[in-house]
Amino acid sequence: MDRRVHDHAEVLVDWSARVEAGDDVVVSVAEGAHGLAVAVAEKLGERGANPLVTYDSDEVSRAYLAAHDGEFSTGEHELAMVENADVYLRLGGGRNTSALADVPGEARQAHSRATAPLREARMETDWVSTVHPTRSLAQQAGMAYEEYREFVYDAVLRDWESLAGEMAEMKEVLDAGSEVRIERERTDLAMSIENRTAVNSAASVRYDSHNLPSGEVFTAPHATEGEVLFDVPITVNGKRLRDVSLTFENGEVVDFSAEANEDELETVLDTDEGARRLGELGIGMNRGIDRFTDNVLFDEKMGDTVHLALGRAYDACLPEGEAGNQSAVHVDLITDMSDGVMEVDGEVVQRNGVFRWEDGFEG
Amino acid sequence: MDRRVHDHAEVLVDWSARVEAGDDVVVSVAEGAHGLAVAVAEKLGERGANPLVTYDSDEVSRAYLAAHDGEFSTGEHELAMVENADVYLRLGGGRNTSALADVPGEARQAHSRATAPLREARMETDWVSTVHPTRSLAQQAGMAYEEYREFVYDAVLRDWESLAGEMAEMKEVLDAGSEVRIERERTDLAMSIENRTAVNSAASVRYDSHNLPSGEVFTAPHATEGEVLFDVPITVNGKRLRDVSLTFENGEVVDFSAEANEDELETVLDTDEGARRLGELGIGMNRGIDRFTDNVLFDEKMGDTVHLALGRAYDACLPEGEAGNQSAVHVDLITDMSDGVMEVDGEVVQRNGVFRWEDGFEG
Repeated sequence: MDRRVHDHAEVLVDWSARVEAGDDVVVSVAEGAHGLAVAVAEKLGERGANPLVTYDSDEVSRAYLAAHDGEFSTGEHELAMVENADVYLRLGGGRNTSALADVPGEARQAHSRATAPLREARMETDWVSTVHPTRSLAQQAGMAYEEYREFVYDAVLRDWESLAGEMAEMKEVLDAGSEVRIERERTDLAMSIENRTAVNSAASVRYDSHNLPSGEVFTAPHATEGEVLFDVPITVNGKRLRDVSLTFENGEVVDFSAEANEDELETVLDTDEGARRLGELGIGMNRGIDRFTDNVLFDEKMGDTVHLALGRAYDACLPEGEAGNQSAVHVDLITDMSDGVMEVDGEVVQRNGVFRWEDGFEG
Repeated sequence: MDRRVHDHAEVLVDWSARVEAGDDVVVSVAEGAHGLAVAVAEKLGERGANPLVTYDSDEVSRAYLAAHDGEFSTGEHELAMVENADVYLRLGGGRNTSALADVPGEARQAHSRATAPLREARMETDWVSTVHPTRSLAQQAGMAYEEYREFVYDAVLRDWESLAGEMAEMKEVLDAGSEVRIERERTDLAMSIENRTAVNSAASVRYDSHNLPSGEVFTAPHATEGEVLFDVPITVNGKRLRDVSLTFENGEVVDFSAEANEDELETVLDTDEGARRLGELGIGMNRGIDRFTDNVLFDEKMGDTVHLALGRAYDACLPEGEAGNQSAVHVDLITDMSDGVMEVDGEVVQRNGVFRWEDGFEG
C-alpha cells in the first residue's frame, strides 16, 4: 500500500481525532474508501481502540430513499451506537459524485429532518471528516488520478502545528472584532461577529476542528446585510450550483439567484427557517490547496477564499449556553477573494487574497 | 441489476427476516456484497424499516487484528447497536476466502472470546445469514462465476412454503422418535433424540431458522455411540479437513483421525469439554443444492447429506429451561448419505439419499 495512505491514517487517528486506548470508534467508510479504512483499522489496532465500521454507500442510500414512502424515523440502534461512541471518523470517497442525482429533494430533506438526532449525537463525539482520493473525485476535479492523489496528500499531510500558529493571528482579529465586511464584484456584505468566538480549525478535535484537511478560521455571524456573489462552483446534493447570488436583510435571505440549478438552491433555502440565515463565516488559510477541485472539503480551506454557510452554526463559536442558528442543513458557499477585500471593524485584513501579516500592508 | 438479486433481497427481507415497518435493522455487508446490499436497502425502504449498514471487511479485520496487542474488549457502541436492533442481516460474500490466512490463531481466538457478548446479543435479534455470489466464492467452489451464480440462486430462490411442508414430515419423525442410527462405509453411529424437538429449518425466523439458503431439519442429539466418517471436505478456520473419522463412547469423542489437518481437528476438540460432544444432528433437504462447493452454508443443506456438529447445541431443540451441550465452538462435519441408510427407532427413513416419502419404500 502507498505509504501516504498510512501517513493519512496516522494524521487522522493521532493528530485529528486523538484516539486513545479503549476508545469506541465508529469508522464510516464510503464506497471507494476501502484502502484508507484498512490503514485506519491498523492504526486503531495499534492504539488499542474498538472500531465499528459502517458502510456509507451512496448507492445503498439512493435505493433506500427512493423506495421509502417518506415517513422516516431515526433508528434506535443507530442512535444508541452514536451515543456510545467516543470518536466518529468519516472516510469519504465515493465512486460517483452524482450517485444520488435522481433522488427527489423532498425525500432527502425528509430523511435529513428525521435523522437530526443522529447528527446532534455525532457532534457530541470527537468526529472528524476526511476523504480518500478516488477516481470519481479526480474526475470531479478535472484531474488525472495520480495528479489528484498528489493534490489530496499535499493538502492533508501538512505541518499542522505550524499552520495552527499562523491561524491564531486571524482568530485574534476575529475574536476582538465586531463587524466583518466583504467587498468585491457584485458583493458588499456586512455581518456582526459581536460576542462570537472564532475557531482555529487546525484539523484536530483539540482545536474544535473536525475536517482533515482543514486550515480555516471560522465563526458564526449574524445580522447579515447586503449582497454576495459566490463564484466558485459547488456541488450540493449532486447538483452543481454556479454563480449563486444572495441578498440579505435583517440576517435573512430575501432574494437569490444561481446560473445553474437554481431550483436546488431554492430547495436548500426552503428546508426550514434557519436555512435562510448564515451559520458560518469561514476564512480559508491552507496554502497546500492550490486550486479549486469542486469539493467543499478542500475548496473552502484554500488560502484566498471565504465561505459562508447557510444553516446550522457550530456551538464552539457561541457563548456558553447560547444557541446559534438552528437548521437541518449546513451548505457552504465559496467566494474567491483573490480580487476582493475583507475588513474587520473598518480595517483591511485581507486584500487580493493576501493577509495583512503575510504582506505587512496597512489595515 | 440482475432480477435475481432483487428476488434474493425480497426472500431475505420478507420470508426469512419478516421485516416490518419501523424495525431497526443492522445490515452487515461483506466486501463483495455491495449489489445485494443495494437490493436489500430498496426492500427495507419499501417496508419502512430503519437500516444501519455495517462493513464486514476481512481486510479491515486482518489489519486490526494483526496490529492489536491482543487485549481486546467489546465496544460499548457496537453492543448498544446490536441490543437495540430488531433484525440483523448478514450479507456474506468476500473477495478472498484466505484474507485472514496470516492472522495468528491466538489473535482470532482472543478477539472471539472478548466479543462473545456481541454474538449473544445478535442471537436475541431476528438474525439471518446469507451470501451474495462473488468470484471468490465461485473460485472456492471450483466453478465459473456465472455458473456459481446459477447455483446460488437455485439454492436461495425456492418455494420455501412447499419445502417447509416436506420438512415437517421429517420433523414429525424425529419428534416422535427416540434413537437415530446412521450406517454406511466406516460408519455405524447411534444417538438418542429422546425429549428433543427438531427444528424445521425453512430459512425463516418464524421457524427458528437463520440461514438463507436453509433446508434442513436439525435436533440436538445425546448419548452418541459408535463411529462415523465425514467424507465431505470442510474448511475450519481456514484449514481444509478431509475424511474426518470420530469414535464416540458415552456421548464423547474417544478417538479421532483426519486425512488432512488433523491438528486443526485436535484444536477444535480441545477447546473445552463440550467440544467433544455433539451439539447438532442436521439432515439436509434442499434439493436445489446439487453439489458440494466448500461452503458450509450450502454443503450442509444438500439433499442427501447429514451433518453432525461438535460443540454448542441450539436452545430451540431443548425442553424449555433445559440447557443442551455448551461450548465455545460449533463445527459442522458433513457425511454423504447417497450410499447410506438412516433409521429412526429401527425404521428406515432415508436410503441412498432418498427419503421414505419421496420414494414410498417401506421403512
